[in-house]
Amino acid sequence: MSSCIGKNITVSLFGQSHSAAVGVVVDGLPAGIRIDKERLQAFLDRRAPGRTPWSTPRKEADAPEFVSGIVDGMTCGAPIAALIRNTNTRSSDYDELRFVPRPGHADYVAEVKYGGRQDVSGGGHFSARLMAPLCIAGGIAIQVLEGESIHVGGHIARIAGIDDAAFPRQGLSPEALHEPAGKPLPVIDDAAGARMIDAILEARRLCDSVGGVVECAAIGLPIGVGEPLFEGIESALARILFAIPAVKGVEFGCGFHAADMRGSAHNDPYRMVGGQVGIIKNDAGGILGGISTGEPVIMRVAFKPTSSIAAVQQSVNLRTGEDADLTVHGRHDPCVAARAVPIVEAACACALLDLVMERRMR
Amino acid sequence: MSSCIGKNITVSLFGQSHSAAVGVVVDGLPAGIRIDKERLQAFLDRRAPGRTPWSTPRKEADAPEFVSGIVDGMTCGAPIAALIRNTNTRSSDYDELRFVPRPGHADYVAEVKYGGRQDVSGGGHFSARLMAPLCIAGGIAIQVLEGESIHVGGHIARIAGIDDAAFPRQGLSPEALHEPAGKPLPVIDDAAGARMIDAILEARRLCDSVGGVVECAAIGLPIGVGEPLFEGIESALARILFAIPAVKGVEFGCGFHAADMRGSAHNDPYRMVGGQVGIIKNDAGGILGGISTGEPVIMRVAFKPTSSIAAVQQSVNLRTGEDADLTVHGRHDPCVAARAVPIVEAACACALLDLVMERRMR
Amino acid sequence: MSSCIGKNITVSLFGQSHSAAVGVVVDGLPAGIRIDKERLQAFLDRRAPGRTPWSTPRKEADAPEFVSGIVDGMTCGAPIAALIRNTNTRSSDYDELRFVPRPGHADYVAEVKYGGRQDVSGGGHFSARLMAPLCIAGGIAIQVLEGESIHVGGHIARIAGIDDAAFPRQGLSPEALHEPAGKPLPVIDDAAGARMIDAILEARRLCDSVGGVVECAAIGLPIGVGEPLFEGIESALARILFAIPAVKGVEFGCGFHAADMRGSAHNDPYRMVGGQVGIIKNDAGGILGGISTGEPVIMRVAFKPTSSIAAVQQSVNLRTGEDADLTVHGRHDPCVAARAVPIVEAACACALLDLVMERRMR
Amino acid sequence: MSSCIGKNITVSLFGQSHSAAVGVVVDGLPAGIRIDKERLQAFLDRRAPGRTPWSTPRKEADAPEFVSGIVDGMTCGAPIAALIRNTNTRSSDYDELRFVPRPGHADYVAEVKYGGRQDVSGGGHFSARLMAPLCIAGGIAIQVLEGESIHVGGHIARIAGIDDAAFPRQGLSPEALHEPAGKPLPVIDDAAGARMIDAILEARRLCDSVGGVVECAAIGLPIGVGEPLFEGIESALARILFAIPAVKGVEFGCGFHAADMRGSAHNDPYRMVGGQVGIIKNDAGGILGGISTGEPVIMRVAFKPTSSIAAVQQSVNLRTGEDADLTVHGRHDPCVAARAVPIVEAACACALLDLVMERRMR
Repeated sequence: MSSCIGKNITVSLFGQSHSAAVGVVVDGLPAGIRIDKERLQAFLDRRAPGRTPWSTPRKEADAPEFVSGIVDGMTCGAPIAALIRNTNTRSSDYDELRFVPRPGHADYVAEVKYGGRQDVSGGGHFSARLMAPLCIAGGIAIQVLEGESIHVGGHIARIAGIDDAAFPRQGLSPEALHEPAGKPLPVIDDAAGARMIDAILEARRLCDSVGGVVECAAIGLPIGVGEPLFEGIESALARILFAIPAVKGVEFGCGFHAADMRGSAHNDPYRMVGGQVGIIKNDAGGILGGISTGEPVIMRVAFKPTSSIAAVQQSVNLRTGEDADLTVHGRHDPCVAARAVPIVEAACACALLDLVMERRMR
Repeated sequence: MSSCIGKNITVSLFGQSHSAAVGVVVDGLPAGIRIDKERLQAFLDRRAPGRTPWSTPRKEADAPEFVSGIVDGMTCGAPIAALIRNTNTRSSDYDELRFVPRPGHADYVAEVKYGGRQDVSGGGHFSARLMAPLCIAGGIAIQVLEGESIHVGGHIARIAGIDDAAFPRQGLSPEALHEPAGKPLPVIDDAAGARMIDAILEARRLCDSVGGVVECAAIGLPIGVGEPLFEGIESALARILFAIPAVKGVEFGCGFHAADMRGSAHNDPYRMVGGQVGIIKNDAGGILGGISTGEPVIMRVAFKPTSSIAAVQQSVNLRTGEDADLTVHGRHDPCVAARAVPIVEAACACALLDLVMERRMR
Repeated sequence: MSSCIGKNITVSLFGQSHSAAVGVVVDGLPAGIRIDKERLQAFLDRRAPGRTPWSTPRKEADAPEFVSGIVDGMTCGAPIAALIRNTNTRSSDYDELRFVPRPGHADYVAEVKYGGRQDVSGGGHFSARLMAPLCIAGGIAIQVLEGESIHVGGHIARIAGIDDAAFPRQGLSPEALHEPAGKPLPVIDDAAGARMIDAILEARRLCDSVGGVVECAAIGLPIGVGEPLFEGIESALARILFAIPAVKGVEFGCGFHAADMRGSAHNDPYRMVGGQVGIIKNDAGGILGGISTGEPVIMRVAFKPTSSIAAVQQSVNLRTGEDADLTVHGRHDPCVAARAVPIVEAACACALLDLVMERRMR
Repeated sequence: MSSCIGKNITVSLFGQSHSAAVGVVVDGLPAGIRIDKERLQAFLDRRAPGRTPWSTPRKEADAPEFVSGIVDGMTCGAPIAALIRNTNTRSSDYDELRFVPRPGHADYVAEVKYGGRQDVSGGGHFSARLMAPLCIAGGIAIQVLEGESIHVGGHIARIAGIDDAAFPRQGLSPEALHEPAGKPLPVIDDAAGARMIDAILEARRLCDSVGGVVECAAIGLPIGVGEPLFEGIESALARILFAIPAVKGVEFGCGFHAADMRGSAHNDPYRMVGGQVGIIKNDAGGILGGISTGEPVIMRVAFKPTSSIAAVQQSVNLRTGEDADLTVHGRHDPCVAARAVPIVEAACACALLDLVMERRMR
């Protein structure tokens, strides 16, 4: 149950890093929605490793095999199931790790929690590999949302202390929203992006890693999406965003900065604009009381630095009960945030689509 | 459904700011747990308004009436239902607001979402008044958790840019955890607290408000609490924390600061300590892969400044379709964060108890 | 959680037979639906005890106190909470039962399950008293469904081996559906009803009880209500119907009789009727593949004879570990089915409304 | 969501009759449980078609491919996903059916519900083919339950009006429970079974079909499994049993017959037996108040006759809007009940395992 999320549109993930496949079941989509598999593949490719100098050389095709739920290119009302085969696994990389937990990973807590019966290889069900099927669900959700003129897009807001420009909080066009996605490192400000790449490569040279922040926005949401209390937009989004490995913080609108503001400055005033109720600014990040205001919904997601680093680390050998030095071989990104933008978009789209469906009902 | 949360321990909130009562149903508690109603009342009193110079003079007894689920002072396995009567309501304060939405509140989005049929008075179901029954559930959860030697406590980490000391990330004792709760303004560093009070009173003098950050910790959690992906500790906590009105950001461990760190600095190493596996530091905030590490679980929650301020604000009149100036009369805290610490503790306890029950099963 | 049901319209029951009150929270209703409290009271009165010679003399007003969710007579989008006070309890009736479990009741299994910490008095949370708040939810659901021209009604189909007439499977009008509700014993055929009353009174004279069957129908459902597999109409209805105390069987359409039929006889043919697709008969009970066909949805619900009888019964004393003879004093119906018709209607309406809402979404 | 069931052990089905595969995700199993794949295959073979003269000649290997969740033959705590490829499909059989709905099937309601976008071929997601992955989940659940000394087994109780013997309601051994499973037609009384086979073959000769009843029992359940109200054993079992195609009735213990009994006869008395509380008989079917009594849990499940019959039937052509005669070619069982016993066992095991896990928690 913990691998399943959503009330109206249910996303259920399965698979381990080195099992036969990872996959997803998406239940609840109305029948008759066309799914563009080429666009979906392009979306998955944005997450796929091995395509830039600063990502892990583990190369996965991430080509989903659709098992059910799509007939003649359209949803048929039955659950969509899709698999991605795990072809390029090197479990031997993990032999050493069997008894020597990697700092920053779930290895040790999983060992205790599952009494040693968890799938150790590649982090098992805790692996970021599970984000590939989440991106299948999210890529589909993005297409469904676009059918309702709702767009979701993101960019890297910060890596290693270097800031990108921010999305404008109002007047954000679909073109501006999607523009970063076309770049090898999805940023708004290319100069900042170049410095980020330097910082990532420098960290790799040092056998180390860096963290980062992803900003994501959803535009086109009508007023009234989200439900009171526990299904507010922030609650729904935060729940799924924190399921992304390495995420340690989530904020909306002014976020933590809002804590330093005065109410007179933070409150977004209303004015009549062209005969319509207008909101003059959007410090709320498009959400009041958990409900969409019609302005862009804006969130920032903090990623810790990649836990797998090539430097020697202190650990213990669980079998011998002795201290052990650990060198994580494998192939790892020096910055998980760099490939995380489509994951954040996918998570955001899944949660919002669920709420959009809810609103349709009432 | 959106007012209900939890898988094993379900918390269901009902009521509006000015309905006959607000209340809660808590389902799933094992039978035979003693509930100390005096301690529960003391917990509720920490949230109750009207007890300090810097909180709203709206005085509510917040005395819960238990309707079911407790027999001879102990849980009986049936759902616990409890009410708090809304005795001290002044709906006339809200007559003007019927058509003039307050900036920063859900008034306008609720008007659109519910087609004008929502309960306008006092913010209706969006009111922070709903946090009183959440605190009943949380106060009970805290007692149940203490039966398992798990303690939850918080303090104000920051108000108006003034920082309190932080909880130590390791070696945090129940005494240190609970110490701030005994103070009028729950801080660790009294000097910082005094300056915060000045800032709050200054904001009130200016007919304005200030925001703040609450830090909360849970200690005594065994290793292995939390489930993979969508029921990880961060996901579960964030979902309920963002349901607290005015919360705009949530972070765990180093949180957003982790995004600026190197992996070699952020990873918490393991070492054998007295024959046991020890974790040398706790930048992870007690959570890896969504699972508890046995170290204190530490979170920070950002509150925006109170939306209700006495200064004149720009709004619109929804009936006439004209711009309107708005003065929010009513009685409001100049800093919601100041009374929010027990709410954060309550939310945290509800979510953790649900996960603790889950772990017991497997 | 076990006291809560529904995905879109959530019904959460609380209370014990002799707690301060029993009650219900109904979450998910759209805002702006007018609730006629007089009609609701009339519906509750149909279930209330003490109004006929053959029901328990325990007289309960069953007057709900609405705590939240209704403003100016209309739903406001927030959860509706309602209580019924337990004024007329005689717990001393149950003193003897503390250690001598009543055959046919949950006393003994509850004692073991809850380790003696359950609420013994009056059957606690297992009491049929919990059906009063279910009827509040159901009475509201009935009104909401009627706003969509869907009607739910029932009658006693059989008591003590005496059969009432059956609802016609096609062409059932709202008037015919609701006609039995106006009678002291809700039957179609008054002669059969008179004989049932004799059988009930005879059973009481013998310090015994009798069982019965309730038939319930829903008309006006459009084609397409219900979801595949686990949210099919039969699954949804059966789940809630079996939660009614004393229910031991549920069948739809021809039900168990269908097992003796040939496919050529059971299949309902299609023919064009006035330019529309028509179904020639309705042996399916209005459901195919879990989905409504547009014909009346017809179900039959079997109730065992009342477990509480005045005759001496064999039991054991759990404290002394010896056999014990038991005489159940209290005040009990000699036939639970006789008052069960509105309960079945309520359960049916709650489940169908949930599915009607689901269909609206897709 | 409608294809997913279970709170602690979640079973999620996907696939259509003629999609690439059908499959299942089972989430929530503790780690470290050994799964015997040979025994599982033997269980699946009991349901598989094409193995007896009276079942459809459509031959499916029903060999599951395990994608995740099992490592070294044991559960690893991650969701188990398994597929069964749909190799032997003959979609052309269904070309005629595209516009001429089969009486007794979901064709027409699905056409209306999904606006013609459903997967028509083979009944799509409504196909009984989905019972194959349910049997994977159930076969696993059966093994897990056996680890707790709980056994589930069934037999055909009635076909075409011919009764098998019934399971004894008390003292039912695992051997007696499992004995019918070893026979081509799983009955207790072979003479009755021979007559049933004759009736099935006779129905086929007449291009017709017959219905039947399956009796299923669970033994070894400790006292206290099941939760009050909506998660009682009957509610949980009925919900999943009615999801089996063609099921029209479910009863427990004496079921509908209980409606004709007196309370003095139906109540099961308690007596001290060998120093333990004993229940003298088991008319309750092992359930009181939704909770297990420790006696065998006994249910009967009514199946309508197979809807697909070779005889000409009356239908309509949805495209032309004219009456149409229909001959269902395809390959179909003349009696669905004959192969339904393992499906009922699977459904029963899934629901009971979920409740067994729940009890463990409290």
